[in-house]
Amino acid sequence: MTVTIDGGLFVVFEGGDGAGKSTQVRELAGWLAERDVPHVVTREPGGTEAGQKMRTILLDPATGHLAPRAEALLYIADKAQHVDEVVRPALGAGQVVVCDRYTDSLLAYQGAGRALAVDEVDTISRWGTHNLRPHLTVLLDVDPAVAVHTKDEQDRLEAAGVEFHQRVREGFLGLAAADPDHYLVLPAREPREWIARQVRARVADLLGLELRGCGGTMAPP
Amino acid sequence: MTVTIDGGLFVVFEGGDGAGKSTQVRELAGWLAERDVPHVVTREPGGTEAGQKMRTILLDPATGHLAPRAEALLYIADKAQHVDEVVRPALGAGQVVVCDRYTDSLLAYQGAGRALAVDEVDTISRWGTHNLRPHLTVLLDVDPAVAVHTKDEQDRLEAAGVEFHQRVREGFLGLAAADPDHYLVLPAREPREWIARQVRARVADLLGLELRGCGGTMAPP
Repeated sequence: MTVTIDGGLFVVFEGGDGAGKSTQVRELAGWLAERDVPHVVTREPGGTEAGQKMRTILLDPATGHLAPRAEALLYIADKAQHVDEVVRPALGAGQVVVCDRYTDSLLAYQGAGRALAVDEVDTISRWGTHNLRPHLTVLLDVDPAVAVHTKDEQDRLEAAGVEFHQRVREGFLGLAAADPDHYLVLPAREPREWIARQVRARVADLLGLELRGCGGTMAPP
Repeated sequence: MTVTIDGGLFVVFEGGDGAGKSTQVRELAGWLAERDVPHVVTREPGGTEAGQKMRTILLDPATGHLAPRAEALLYIADKAQHVDEVVRPALGAGQVVVCDRYTDSLLAYQGAGRALAVDEVDTISRWGTHNLRPHLTVLLDVDPAVAVHTKDEQDRLEAAGVEFHQRVREGFLGLAAADPDHYLVLPAREPREWIARQVRARVADLLGLELRGCGGTMAPP
């Protein structure tokens, strides 16, 4: 069976570091694969070959200090390439695109850093992506004050400051609150399987609008 | 003698490939050095370490196709880093910044490519650079139809199309015409020394507003 969805379906996972995004991306991709739903798993930054090089500039400590506007523009350049090369073609072929981070991460982190006006970054980001918006953003929400489970997490958090991560969280929640129909906000510390079920239920619902023969066992728990 | 210029002086060389920009950058830098005028010679893209990596993404054929918006955003990210890390600090220290290409190249080439609206690119470029404008832009103007002197030049021109380079030229001339007080437009096929003298005369005039003891033999030819 080859299933195509008219216009595709763009599903994004967002949340702070350690919220479990990549785990839930894999869970959803596995479920789609089991049902022969054509899909693409991707991520930002670095979802293309050129984007990989941009990701290296952005995340490699060897880069040294990046000017705040240069950093934001690089993130948006990565998105522009990713949307053009990966996301739009896949949606155009009727596939489900499952993406680890998209524009909300940019806005939440830049907003928390307070070096830039978020509305200006948002305007440029919409220009870069031709204003492509996800059909669904799954926000894995976690309180940074209780998120510290391991020594590694503790080191990372302390390096950037718990207050910074609180502002990142507020940024994500603010974006979700402004557009509730396109968000699924889930508590990230719930069991992995419970979270995966909530995501599947919502995605099945969205696919059910266009797909036939993809129902069955997909009723919400 | 250590000379500092209040607020510095930002001089940019613009023009198509093969117009002689780097030669004239060297001429001006040599003249400034002879007079102990503190100065920085730099270029875009690639005037910083991070910018070098962006330049590689932009100009290395191995990158493959870049989406038009990704390409423009990368050029602007390079500028943002360059202005923050190199140009503004040098100007703040009262130096002359001599730069090979700046925002006009972006606008002229993007405009000629016709994939993007130049006013949109301009708006984002001004955001990225905190709207820092050169005190003087030297435009080395050359007619692409008569610019072909060598087989190499011919190959390059034919690859991109003479019409494209005509549009680039018109883009540069249009920017100069819109702000004549800040431009010196010179015919690039005139002798190198003649061009260098015109540039020195204009720069001496601009420095004369702030500098003492830098005059002497600097009257225009």
